[in-house]
Amino acid sequence: MNIIENVLAERYASPEMKTIWSPEGRIVMEREFWIAVMKAQKKAGVDIPQEAIDAYEQVKNKVDLESIRAREQITRHDVKARIEEFCDLAGFEQIHKGMTSRDLTENVEQVQIYRSLLLIRAKAVAALNRMAQRAEQYKTLVITARTHNVAAQPTTFGKRIAMFGEDLMAALEELDFLIDRFAVRGIKGAVGTCLDLQTLFDGDAAKMSAFEDEIAAHLGIPRTLKAVGQVYPRSLDYAAVSALVAAASAPSSFAKTLRLMAGNETASEGFAKGQVGSSAMPHKMNSRSCERINGFKVILCGYAEMVSALAGDQWNEGDVSCSVVRRVALPDAFFAADGLMETFLTVLNQMEVYEAAIQNENRRYFPFLVTTTILMEAVKHGAGRETAHEAIKEQAVAVARDLRSGKIAHNDLIQRLAKDSRIGLSEEQLQAILDRADELTGSAVTQVDDFVQRTEVWRSRFPKEAEYTPGAIL
Amino acid sequence: MNIIENVLAERYASPEMKTIWSPEGRIVMEREFWIAVMKAQKKAGVDIPQEAIDAYEQVKNKVDLESIRAREQITRHDVKARIEEFCDLAGFEQIHKGMTSRDLTENVEQVQIYRSLLLIRAKAVAALNRMAQRAEQYKTLVITARTHNVAAQPTTFGKRIAMFGEDLMAALEELDFLIDRFAVRGIKGAVGTCLDLQTLFDGDAAKMSAFEDEIAAHLGIPRTLKAVGQVYPRSLDYAAVSALVAAASAPSSFAKTLRLMAGNETASEGFAKGQVGSSAMPHKMNSRSCERINGFKVILCGYAEMVSALAGDQWNEGDVSCSVVRRVALPDAFFAADGLMETFLTVLNQMEVYEAAIQNENRRYFPFLVTTTILMEAVKHGAGRETAHEAIKEQAVAVARDLRSGKIAHNDLIQRLAKDSRIGLSEEQLQAILDRADELTGSAVTQVDDFVQRTEVWRSRFPKEAEYTPGAIL
Amino acid sequence: MNIIENVLAERYASPEMKTIWSPEGRIVMEREFWIAVMKAQKKAGVDIPQEAIDAYEQVKNKVDLESIRAREQITRHDVKARIEEFCDLAGFEQIHKGMTSRDLTENVEQVQIYRSLLLIRAKAVAALNRMAQRAEQYKTLVITARTHNVAAQPTTFGKRIAMFGEDLMAALEELDFLIDRFAVRGIKGAVGTCLDLQTLFDGDAAKMSAFEDEIAAHLGIPRTLKAVGQVYPRSLDYAAVSALVAAASAPSSFAKTLRLMAGNETASEGFAKGQVGSSAMPHKMNSRSCERINGFKVILCGYAEMVSALAGDQWNEGDVSCSVVRRVALPDAFFAADGLMETFLTVLNQMEVYEAAIQNENRRYFPFLVTTTILMEAVKHGAGRETAHEAIKEQAVAVARDLRSGKIAHNDLIQRLAKDSRIGLSEEQLQAILDRADELTGSAVTQVDDFVQRTEVWRSRFPKEAEYTPGAIL
Amino acid sequence: MNIIENVLAERYASPEMKTIWSPEGRIVMEREFWIAVMKAQKKAGVDIPQEAIDAYEQVKNKVDLESIRAREQITRHDVKARIEEFCDLAGFEQIHKGMTSRDLTENVEQVQIYRSLLLIRAKAVAALNRMAQRAEQYKTLVITARTHNVAAQPTTFGKRIAMFGEDLMAALEELDFLIDRFAVRGIKGAVGTCLDLQTLFDGDAAKMSAFEDEIAAHLGIPRTLKAVGQVYPRSLDYAAVSALVAAASAPSSFAKTLRLMAGNETASEGFAKGQVGSSAMPHKMNSRSCERINGFKVILCGYAEMVSALAGDQWNEGDVSCSVVRRVALPDAFFAADGLMETFLTVLNQMEVYEAAIQNENRRYFPFLVTTTILMEAVKHGAGRETAHEAIKEQAVAVARDLRSGKIAHNDLIQRLAKDSRIGLSEEQLQAILDRADELTGSAVTQVDDFVQRTEVWRSRFPKEAEYTPGAIL
Repeated sequence: MNIIENVLAERYASPEMKTIWSPEGRIVMEREFWIAVMKAQKKAGVDIPQEAIDAYEQVKNKVDLESIRAREQITRHDVKARIEEFCDLAGFEQIHKGMTSRDLTENVEQVQIYRSLLLIRAKAVAALNRMAQRAEQYKTLVITARTHNVAAQPTTFGKRIAMFGEDLMAALEELDFLIDRFAVRGIKGAVGTCLDLQTLFDGDAAKMSAFEDEIAAHLGIPRTLKAVGQVYPRSLDYAAVSALVAAASAPSSFAKTLRLMAGNETASEGFAKGQVGSSAMPHKMNSRSCERINGFKVILCGYAEMVSALAGDQWNEGDVSCSVVRRVALPDAFFAADGLMETFLTVLNQMEVYEAAIQNENRRYFPFLVTTTILMEAVKHGAGRETAHEAIKEQAVAVARDLRSGKIAHNDLIQRLAKDSRIGLSEEQLQAILDRADELTGSAVTQVDDFVQRTEVWRSRFPKEAEYTPGAIL
Repeated sequence: MNIIENVLAERYASPEMKTIWSPEGRIVMEREFWIAVMKAQKKAGVDIPQEAIDAYEQVKNKVDLESIRAREQITRHDVKARIEEFCDLAGFEQIHKGMTSRDLTENVEQVQIYRSLLLIRAKAVAALNRMAQRAEQYKTLVITARTHNVAAQPTTFGKRIAMFGEDLMAALEELDFLIDRFAVRGIKGAVGTCLDLQTLFDGDAAKMSAFEDEIAAHLGIPRTLKAVGQVYPRSLDYAAVSALVAAASAPSSFAKTLRLMAGNETASEGFAKGQVGSSAMPHKMNSRSCERINGFKVILCGYAEMVSALAGDQWNEGDVSCSVVRRVALPDAFFAADGLMETFLTVLNQMEVYEAAIQNENRRYFPFLVTTTILMEAVKHGAGRETAHEAIKEQAVAVARDLRSGKIAHNDLIQRLAKDSRIGLSEEQLQAILDRADELTGSAVTQVDDFVQRTEVWRSRFPKEAEYTPGAIL
Repeated sequence: MNIIENVLAERYASPEMKTIWSPEGRIVMEREFWIAVMKAQKKAGVDIPQEAIDAYEQVKNKVDLESIRAREQITRHDVKARIEEFCDLAGFEQIHKGMTSRDLTENVEQVQIYRSLLLIRAKAVAALNRMAQRAEQYKTLVITARTHNVAAQPTTFGKRIAMFGEDLMAALEELDFLIDRFAVRGIKGAVGTCLDLQTLFDGDAAKMSAFEDEIAAHLGIPRTLKAVGQVYPRSLDYAAVSALVAAASAPSSFAKTLRLMAGNETASEGFAKGQVGSSAMPHKMNSRSCERINGFKVILCGYAEMVSALAGDQWNEGDVSCSVVRRVALPDAFFAADGLMETFLTVLNQMEVYEAAIQNENRRYFPFLVTTTILMEAVKHGAGRETAHEAIKEQAVAVARDLRSGKIAHNDLIQRLAKDSRIGLSEEQLQAILDRADELTGSAVTQVDDFVQRTEVWRSRFPKEAEYTPGAIL
Repeated sequence: MNIIENVLAERYASPEMKTIWSPEGRIVMEREFWIAVMKAQKKAGVDIPQEAIDAYEQVKNKVDLESIRAREQITRHDVKARIEEFCDLAGFEQIHKGMTSRDLTENVEQVQIYRSLLLIRAKAVAALNRMAQRAEQYKTLVITARTHNVAAQPTTFGKRIAMFGEDLMAALEELDFLIDRFAVRGIKGAVGTCLDLQTLFDGDAAKMSAFEDEIAAHLGIPRTLKAVGQVYPRSLDYAAVSALVAAASAPSSFAKTLRLMAGNETASEGFAKGQVGSSAMPHKMNSRSCERINGFKVILCGYAEMVSALAGDQWNEGDVSCSVVRRVALPDAFFAADGLMETFLTVLNQMEVYEAAIQNENRRYFPFLVTTTILMEAVKHGAGRETAHEAIKEQAVAVARDLRSGKIAHNDLIQRLAKDSRIGLSEEQLQAILDRADELTGSAVTQVDDFVQRTEVWRSRFPKEAEYTPGAIL
């Protein structure tokens, strides 16, 4: 039978993310770790011949998964199988000294998580940058803001984008914090007491400390845990996956809103050449990518739940039921987050905005939206506040009902109010108010400027990442 | 880069489950569906040449995923790519008449789910049968029952197994109900109104109904939905995955309890030859399989959560963000459930029970556990109830403290009570009560008999399934 | 400080549901259980004076929570406090014989769950009945069906309702199954072996069995578990809460679709007198109730997750970390489900459908939706299939683009196709096709009839429940 | 009917947490917010009489929930009801100028969350401090570390506590970060554009900015969001609740481990006077509090799931289905987290450690645990490495089997190895190794010292909080 592939990896994730989590990539990562350990041990006086280290170096990229699998069938121990394979290739038996399996696997898995976080942060920076550009582009395009999915007040499309962008910025700060404080388990032995290392270094604390620093430097992770047991606390996995959920929030809200706009034909996610039009429905333009973003969000929440069940479930020094869960939830959460970012970047690049449709919508709703201003003017011109308010409410509700019942085709609230003596304003006066509706976007433009300016710090920290272009998506 | 494989499928699932969800298996399932549709259409008078049907039949097992993938790159439509491939192989263009993509995919996916449910039910029957055998085997083996993880009253190990077995039986009934009422979407067109079929059959209701029956018969699913939209309600997916969570409950509780027993050395999951003893810790016998069962349970809850988010999220006639979620959560939930059952069956087969350790535990706790009986006897022999109760409590707490502080090595409560004049019973009398402690298991044995008898209905319905032997696990 | 109230109970749940879960209601339920136990024990020969039973009967409704709380402060044992209170009130000490705390609490909690399930089933029947009426009412009202939130094919609004109604019907079957197989724990002692009962009845199996039957009859629950430990399997709690999630699916999808329709002004949830129009936005009609339904669904999924974590987490004979979780998740899940049903029934009663707006929408989209038919006619009249298809696609995409760019205000696809010589049909012919668009709803009407007919079985089983009218909602 | 109370608030939360979320507390918080707004508006030139502000100040603590509820029945608008009540009490109509409901509710709810986070951080500091003390106390108490729940290597109990303490420290950093970057929505109007404020301040940007600063200062929250819509992003709620899950990780792992230790009688959570001993089982000491901690963890995960479903589900400018979910999940998550911390602190204070039982356990397992050292010594004395290893493995497995089968009562591995000529060490030599087993705790003690030292930063930042004593728990 053929191999069943990981759908999230193969259909949605980028090559960079796949490299981090691929079985081959992991084997190489492990081998590099063993080599780094040997070098550090040698430096600290452990007797390891240089030619052994060189031999391992030379074969570290020769990855034969089939051969390893065959060894595992015999040993029934995955790490042992990988030790044997590497040693046979190199012709030496010098790796894994003073280490237990977890000294290898915990650290390598944390490196996978750490590098994946770096990758997601980079793409989140790219998305933020693209949102800033789009917010700038549509900064003054007046649209009908909606709450409860119905027309509320005018805003601009740029401000709507900035609104979601600010959400992404918060998630980016959280990712950044997580990366900065990321702490690796280190080599601590079977129950975390460093017993075997102590033996290896004859209890020389200075050597042990130097060794630990070397290892941390190799792993490239800022901090090291000090009092762990066999495993690092699974709350750290939860911190990583819940940061992915947070990072999915802004793209998901944006995607959902774009799906709603597509339903009103005011915007769409944009479409590749071949995509528009099916044999049955030539005009059909489905928000497939936006839907997928929302789907990725659901997937991430599911993995967050799996991982949340592991945090706080450590029995004694560790190693319980978490292995199989982590094998699934960690890579798959990162594949999903990566696929989400790729898709989101594509949508940001390709989306289309239909200004005429937006104006139609504005035209329909603005007479309602300016009634606050009309009320103020009516009072200025001598109308009683309560009387005018009652008149406006009556007329507005009647117009809404007539529009829905088909009695009228266009919003004629202005005309009706002009005829209502309780208001005391002429049609010209009322029309003049309506004509200024476009100005009723408050601080929307300033807020966009401010948002764009605040994204600058991310662009300057990560100039190359900010310009990242997503790969082609399915 | 090599393909990243699906860990749940490749490490844990059985070949039978993998076949149902493999890309190749699915392609064949789709082709068989198209062929069944053609046959039914031909029967109903649609003009389809028999040689076309024969040609499709002959090539239906020629699955070339690479070729299909290449077509998808061009069409950007997965179903279209598969139609073209199949037609090119057969040399005809007769499939997919009057159908939309969802008419194909919804039904085929439901067949996958249905067959998977059948498979899980079969394995749950095997597990139940094995639990009945184990309960029978240990029916009279007296153990110290625990609540709050501390000794409570005597029971038998057989009764403990029956207790979890009854949980599995309830889950089996739920699975059974689900299978019995399983309803397939059927061929209903883009929005569920059967418009295209109606056109194809010139609105002939009898023909449409006959056609639908033929299709249902081909699919082998008992019921058909009647008023669906583009998609069947996702609550049906949730019903399937939540049934898997329920089916995981008994194995998971059993596994957790066995891990606790392993900690006390009263039982273990049993070990293959090479497994016992590592270089560092030669005596170490880890409950790896039981831990894995608990891990699968966590995984299933995560997929249940993903799927629960889809139920109740249908926009209009359907097709929203569920695609990517279902692509992941459905197969992976079944892989996990299948791996769990395989592992559970293995544990049931291999577990070891350490009767001497159990007796040690009983010896330690039984003096406490018989105090209720002692109290009754003391009262019979003339002691005041309250006085005797107070005496017993005082002595028992003191013994517990002395055991924990190391003052005494063995439970000497009987001896202390014999010396306490408030009780009025001799050491012989007290010892006689303690000697009968083994009889204080109440209805445990009868309950086991009853449980075993109730499993009979499942064995007679599924005699072959009940005897299923799991494959080798990692 | 004042008491913080349970928001779900006090804002959203019905009095019937609150009664089941109120502290006072529970006290009475417990007392009735104790009395039933005494009666059954007396019948089986246990020496309990009739005047004691009568005395307990007389005071069973005197519930003083403060007094019980004061007792608990001293005993630090909730059940003990309630025993003392009841005995002091009655002036006897005859209750709780041969029972442990769990013999009381497990059974009473299962009665709460069982009665709550009956209540939810009753309301689901009412909702199904109302959906049938609404489907019938709008059976022939043609609307533009949407997939991916964009226009797809015509359907009828009645069919859309039937579609969600069929989802509810499936959930109702699941609820029904759950109620039918509901199994109570019964009185089984501290670890489930019936040890104390055996002592009480001198090991007389016939008496024990008769006693158990009496208790089951009192509880009014169809089945009794036979091999439980201290607690019944928590998978049964999960079955209950996951059935609530399933029952929330149809209302939630319907509510979401209605929110979308409100955004297009084709329908709304309807509004009470005072609700329409705020001072700022006189026309504003928010889908508050529909949003709330969607919120309840999210809440239910959260409680399902809590309860799913308890299933499969039983250590030995039971009683671990589930108490506090069940105290919260069980009542609150039922309050949420109850609030959801009340709100859903209200929406079904009050919703408004705006036929003129629906026709506007149809007018806009139908020219696209009839292109399949146009193609067939063109071919009949001599056009080449591929040529005509290409022509239609070109024109349709152009129209869509012109509508969005504001170049045209109305869909003029018919006119453009009339001018396209590749089609070969006159404007009259094309218009005639468009005029028949309303007929392109396939089997929609038949499906509604069928759906309504299938709901009949529920109405005849539960005639009174089907007519239930919801209380006023906030 | 009596009010159904919030179980989490009334049974488990502290008065401080209840005050933050009580209906009365919230009313006062809102009123203080309105007063702060008036003052800031007055300062910026809005015409508000000082006597009005004074009048509001004087009545702000007069909270009559019944009166407000009666108003809500009429207005059907909760905020409106509270405006009217406050104005009637004060005799003025000056509050809520230029504000919409969300300008009030979003900010006040964020203050509730913010203050709750401060409270949880304070208690987490207290818990960390107590863990440091306990780690110090048991720094050198040698115990048998377990992985996979079976004996692995020696460690110290202090190190075990430090291990969980380091987990708590990470969570504390996350809480701290969250508090530092906490950003309040501010007053931004119905869709976030500040339209009404702009009108109120005649578009004077300086005034608006000054006003915003005043408001932020009143709220006492470090940052303000700039580009929000009607609501702040719900990912911020998720950040808060997922930080609570993270903070629950260490207490939950610790509690689970203590439950396991209680099962082996090596430690217990400690017990209040009346708690030990029931009438039936006088010796019974249940880990009720630890179980409850694990239950709170499950509850928190459920609320995290609810809130995760809200993040990324914002439609347009906001306000969808989140209201009812947030009403439930936010306070209840904080009540649960607070109850967890109170319970955890109590367990840390009361727990008992049974050194004799620990030594018994060590005695049983240490012969196995020193085999690595024996092997090294054997090789030093001339044995072949492979031969000696094989000998040790054989003997160790045999001893383990004999112990479990009851053949031997004590671990006699040392004696057996002494007789095995393949080893070549005398019983004295072997016994000498075993006698040094207590020294095989590696860096455990140093790690405790280091951990205690690292907690110092939290004690110095929060000296008062570190000494917090929990209230009495149920």
